Amino acid sequence: MAKLNDSDKTSSGFWVTEEAPIHSDNPIATPQAAAPDILRCAYMELVVTDLAASREFYVDVLGLYVTEEDDEAIYLRSTEEFIHHNLVLRKGPVAAVAAFSYRVRTPEDLDKAVAFYTELGCDVRRNENGFVKGIGDSVRVVDPLGFPYEFFYQTEHVERLAWRYDLHTPGELVRLDHFNQVTPDVPRAVRHYQDLGFRVTEDIQDNEGTVYAAWLRRKPTVHDTAATGGDGPRMHHVAFATHEKHNILAICDKLGALRLSDRIERGPGRHGVSNAFYLYLLDPDGHRVEIYTQDYYTGDPDNPVVTWDVHDNQRRDWWGNPVVPSWYTEASLVLDLDGNPQPVIARTDDSEMAVTIGADGFSYTREGDETKGFKLGETL
Amino acid sequence: MAKLNDSDKTSSGFWVTEEAPIHSDNPIATPQAAAPDILRCAYMELVVTDLAASREFYVDVLGLYVTEEDDEAIYLRSTEEFIHHNLVLRKGPVAAVAAFSYRVRTPEDLDKAVAFYTELGCDVRRNENGFVKGIGDSVRVVDPLGFPYEFFYQTEHVERLAWRYDLHTPGELVRLDHFNQVTPDVPRAVRHYQDLGFRVTEDIQDNEGTVYAAWLRRKPTVHDTAATGGDGPRMHHVAFATHEKHNILAICDKLGALRLSDRIERGPGRHGVSNAFYLYLLDPDGHRVEIYTQDYYTGDPDNPVVTWDVHDNQRRDWWGNPVVPSWYTEASLVLDLDGNPQPVIARTDDSEMAVTIGADGFSYTREGDETKGFKLGETL
Amino acid sequence: MAKLNDSDKTSSGFWVTEEAPIHSDNPIATPQAAAPDILRCAYMELVVTDLAASREFYVDVLGLYVTEEDDEAIYLRSTEEFIHHNLVLRKGPVAAVAAFSYRVRTPEDLDKAVAFYTELGCDVRRNENGFVKGIGDSVRVVDPLGFPYEFFYQTEHVERLAWRYDLHTPGELVRLDHFNQVTPDVPRAVRHYQDLGFRVTEDIQDNEGTVYAAWLRRKPTVHDTAATGGDGPRMHHVAFATHEKHNILAICDKLGALRLSDRIERGPGRHGVSNAFYLYLLDPDGHRVEIYTQDYYTGDPDNPVVTWDVHDNQRRDWWGNPVVPSWYTEASLVLDLDGNPQPVIARTDDSEMAVTIGADGFSYTREGDETKGFKLGETL
Amino acid sequence: MAKLNDSDKTSSGFWVTEEAPIHSDNPIATPQAAAPDILRCAYMELVVTDLAASREFYVDVLGLYVTEEDDEAIYLRSTEEFIHHNLVLRKGPVAAVAAFSYRVRTPEDLDKAVAFYTELGCDVRRNENGFVKGIGDSVRVVDPLGFPYEFFYQTEHVERLAWRYDLHTPGELVRLDHFNQVTPDVPRAVRHYQDLGFRVTEDIQDNEGTVYAAWLRRKPTVHDTAATGGDGPRMHHVAFATHEKHNILAICDKLGALRLSDRIERGPGRHGVSNAFYLYLLDPDGHRVEIYTQDYYTGDPDNPVVTWDVHDNQRRDWWGNPVVPSWYTEASLVLDLDGNPQPVIARTDDSEMAVTIGADGFSYTREGDETKGFKLGETL
Repeated sequence: MAKLNDSDKTSSGFWVTEEAPIHSDNPIATPQAAAPDILRCAYMELVVTDLAASREFYVDVLGLYVTEEDDEAIYLRSTEEFIHHNLVLRKGPVAAVAAFSYRVRTPEDLDKAVAFYTELGCDVRRNENGFVKGIGDSVRVVDPLGFPYEFFYQTEHVERLAWRYDLHTPGELVRLDHFNQVTPDVPRAVRHYQDLGFRVTEDIQDNEGTVYAAWLRRKPTVHDTAATGGDGPRMHHVAFATHEKHNILAICDKLGALRLSDRIERGPGRHGVSNAFYLYLLDPDGHRVEIYTQDYYTGDPDNPVVTWDVHDNQRRDWWGNPVVPSWYTEASLVLDLDGNPQPVIARTDDSEMAVTIGADGFSYTREGDETKGFKLGETL
Repeated sequence: MAKLNDSDKTSSGFWVTEEAPIHSDNPIATPQAAAPDILRCAYMELVVTDLAASREFYVDVLGLYVTEEDDEAIYLRSTEEFIHHNLVLRKGPVAAVAAFSYRVRTPEDLDKAVAFYTELGCDVRRNENGFVKGIGDSVRVVDPLGFPYEFFYQTEHVERLAWRYDLHTPGELVRLDHFNQVTPDVPRAVRHYQDLGFRVTEDIQDNEGTVYAAWLRRKPTVHDTAATGGDGPRMHHVAFATHEKHNILAICDKLGALRLSDRIERGPGRHGVSNAFYLYLLDPDGHRVEIYTQDYYTGDPDNPVVTWDVHDNQRRDWWGNPVVPSWYTEASLVLDLDGNPQPVIARTDDSEMAVTIGADGFSYTREGDETKGFKLGETL
Repeated sequence: MAKLNDSDKTSSGFWVTEEAPIHSDNPIATPQAAAPDILRCAYMELVVTDLAASREFYVDVLGLYVTEEDDEAIYLRSTEEFIHHNLVLRKGPVAAVAAFSYRVRTPEDLDKAVAFYTELGCDVRRNENGFVKGIGDSVRVVDPLGFPYEFFYQTEHVERLAWRYDLHTPGELVRLDHFNQVTPDVPRAVRHYQDLGFRVTEDIQDNEGTVYAAWLRRKPTVHDTAATGGDGPRMHHVAFATHEKHNILAICDKLGALRLSDRIERGPGRHGVSNAFYLYLLDPDGHRVEIYTQDYYTGDPDNPVVTWDVHDNQRRDWWGNPVVPSWYTEASLVLDLDGNPQPVIARTDDSEMAVTIGADGFSYTREGDETKGFKLGETL
Repeated sequence: MAKLNDSDKTSSGFWVTEEAPIHSDNPIATPQAAAPDILRCAYMELVVTDLAASREFYVDVLGLYVTEEDDEAIYLRSTEEFIHHNLVLRKGPVAAVAAFSYRVRTPEDLDKAVAFYTELGCDVRRNENGFVKGIGDSVRVVDPLGFPYEFFYQTEHVERLAWRYDLHTPGELVRLDHFNQVTPDVPRAVRHYQDLGFRVTEDIQDNEGTVYAAWLRRKPTVHDTAATGGDGPRMHHVAFATHEKHNILAICDKLGALRLSDRIERGPGRHGVSNAFYLYLLDPDGHRVEIYTQDYYTGDPDNPVVTWDVHDNQRRDWWGNPVVPSWYTEASLVLDLDGNPQPVIARTDDSEMAVTIGADGFSYTREGDETKGFKLGETL
């Protein structure tokens, strides 16, 4: 951000540039092989320790639709989805993420995925019958950042329940929106995912050029995934979209009625980054789920990249409400392709929490104002 | 609450009774004189130290309509109001409240008000031309709890702007909803306001019978005013209603856009008490304004009184989000009839903040659960 | 309206006066006996011909809560209600209304009701055990206009489900709002209901002084009942309130999903009269149900009375969308106290439909504009 | 639709197939030249006869933002747009459409556009300085169906006002969503636009295989443009999106307040096709503008194509509210590249209005039900 000009600063207090102003000093090599053409984030496979408790949360509370289920796994989808599922809950001994799964444009993109990751020296496995029900020929890899990524094209079609208003609930989840990954070195992650075909839409930096987080997209929304700086590889959250803001409030109200308000970790609120309305929940295993609505179209190749100052206290909550510390520190383990948790590597760059809360940190609502910390800081 | 039966407990975790289970050991004598017939809270007269800054907040940001203004005062009303104003901003040396003003049913009720408060030994003044513009014959008193109360019937009618959608903003404030008063001894306040004709709709207590707050109504909503336990007499907040929840979110969004997010003190959220959706703002002098929507009808004489356990962490925020400490401790001074600030008397009963946050306090989401504090406690 | 001054005309195109400008040339005598003190419209008893079909509509589609039911009747309530029911569906041979039931302030008001209607020469019956389950001592009468009216105070309390968000649906009905009665002579009805303690809030007239409809309230909303000019006595509709407008849209969406869109008779839309957002549905027997939200406070004694010109095409739909003819012509029979349908007497004053649609009728969007009919007229 | 299997019928009453079941007997030849890679519909150039009146409608009423203006033209954009404009209002003698303009992925796509349309024998003109302000190198053509199409990549970037909530209105228009074109032979149009790279998402047919309308997309929404059967080439409407449904209702309310309710032609309502919430307005020249929100993601190559039966009365309004005849018959002229109106050719296939309204037409809410016409039919 040190290089950003005042002329790039918007009237809303952030900067826009044509290219993401992120450079990695420690890049992963760019493969010669072409990247697969990713359409969108498609589903997450979550390992949960109590399948019944998870079913209660995702089906009875959040209202996701069960496409199929057995004693080992539950396949869930959102209202507007026509592929088999957006979420797999699989019973296992350790709560973790087994796959971040993306849909590709053609069956042939799987060959590209194999070549791309093989060149990178990753563990690459292909299963023509799919690794989970409802999905055909698939490729799973542990990517260079340590995340279990999946690519597929073939899938069973199921009925889109968009018109089935008789089934809808006040907090209806209509789409899978994005993933969010915790990784120690954000510029390194960004560079690698750019190689995979993602584009940066927004990021958080400081004047010294430290990058705290970046948002990356394939479909023309703010993101299909994001790289959040922290000890990783870990999964920060998976996000579902609602149509309207009141749908998100209805989820909070229902959690209160069920005396489950302690599942609400943060929000609801308005993000600065993405401009979306949000809520963060914790499932029975502590997996974080975001409910999200109303970001903006990003599909043009010259879509302006938004850079936020880490000290702008409206970057993560436009209303200046504090980020709770657990949101910065807690995240889910991710698995390798044999189902073993990946080791977690500590972030060495500055921590966003440290530079914005507490003794050494400060933030501002109006740049240049006398520093007085932000709301949480003031009350602690 | 010690006397409440389990049979009175609702499926939502609070208790209902036919009569407010509040008794004062130190009551103010009930006058022989009949109380005036109060229709509703009608307006607050606020003393502000910078009239231009206050105008910017209430008119430019919140969108209240200016009925009339001069160099000393601004008279504001909400969208659906047909009386002259709901808020008077008057320039003065010390930020404070000059009047909590109620409309009565008939001109003759002013005579009753004079008799009622005279019998109570209060300072009582009557001005047949009104103490402020737009209001006729009025009675002002310092009530036995130290609050400057006003009663009037005569007022200029102005156009109700309910149909003027061309003037409305995304965060339109449609009605004055209620006042909230800080007072050390809540049972004493409740008993007195019951003598004045108010009825309790909800309260917060503990098993030892300490009463932390009570809500009192004349019009058939949850309240026209409330008694909040704390050092007083002080004014906790004045509240305006919107039609829908998104209107309240729009106010937050606008404050963010104006880089005024630090005016958001608490919320938005869903109250347990009142079941309303809420937001608390601080004006340029620190006067607290609530934005509020969708409580329930309370007009039947046997309307069930709701009692909340002070340790239920969903009582003040149904989603379990923590109350910020300033919300418990900060409030506005109130003036006597000569414009001098009333002395503030300390509360001696337990403080709600102390019993719910920090070393000695605890709260629960599910009664009987292992105590683990509530969200703010956990993060501190 | 002929007497209304231009100075009374608002910037929104209607008139306001302090007193309802309605005079009856054929009034019902005002009793010497005091009227009972009515709190609010409380429930309607509907006779339906197919109890299962009606249950499906009111419970499965509209989501009203069953307090109690048997083979003969179903007792339903809305979300925020604490009395036993707001609607009774009773099986019977002819679809009709058995009672418009109002709650009164005290048990003693029943004595007043007996005296009031006895003096008027009405059929008056009192049942100390109530005429329906859940209601105690009650008085039923056939009022001078031919409507079966009920008054009661005693009732079983049930749990208010306002906080039970886990039970709520996207189209949640939170309160009974009002009744609407069809009667040939509107001024005569208004005068009589004023004697009973109702106050006019709005009306529709023409320059010749013909009154087409009037809205009357006890609780401080726009109405507890309304008198709609037409062949009567008949029941035009019973109305339930939602919290927000999207709740009403959700009911439409659900009816579409159930392939029951033909139950939507009119709307959704914004009323001119009342400023509320509305929808009219027809139940399986053709009883009309309105879903309604966001009118305004009317509780002050000098609440301005709004008078609309019958030729203003925004009076019944603020967006100028046409009223469908069935809405003007169709209504439900009402029963006498022996369960026999009351004879229907034809309106002799001008019909609102006739003066606004078709060969002789015209309306305007902007008064004084060249007459070009309104939307429906243009397309017919 | 005759070929659709019952197994393709959804529980919502329409059919889904993997490929659009549309075949043209009279196709336009597919060029050998590759089609330009279209990103999205970007702006419409409208000729208006009274620039001040149009400015009042689009800026003062609808709240579009003025990027630039002079005596001849006004350049407007929606809230979330970062390119120069989404709408150009140009003063001219005859109300018409001068360009349907699409943004392409790269500057080189303009060469492809030239080759594509040259091969088709169209009038093709390229202007490296753009045909309007704010747009660089552009190609304009009269396409084989007679529509003035434009393609461009270069454009000035302007500030995205998404975060500027201080500027937003209750009816905020956030994006240009789509165009809609009237053309006599829908299958011919579909086939041609498929050659140009569009994909069908939904259509309306009958059992005889007549196609009444089809929706076509580039960006992953239900459409960037649609082909509506009728006398053409004409422009049916241009559509802007809001975030929520209440924003659309707010536009209606504002038009009522301004006594402009006669600008509301149809709606608001819920579409069957697209599942979006909609409203149709007429601008001062009669150009139709749709306000639209909440369709669904269509970006996967195997996105299920939805086919509606023309006799399903929920296809165009999910609530069964009738389509007003003017909506079927009225549309705007389109211009050739010299500014002359294109001749209008009559549709010879069945008209949707004729087969669904009136003497020969019928529709159903529940397929197989006794035919009783639909709402408008019943009331006419």
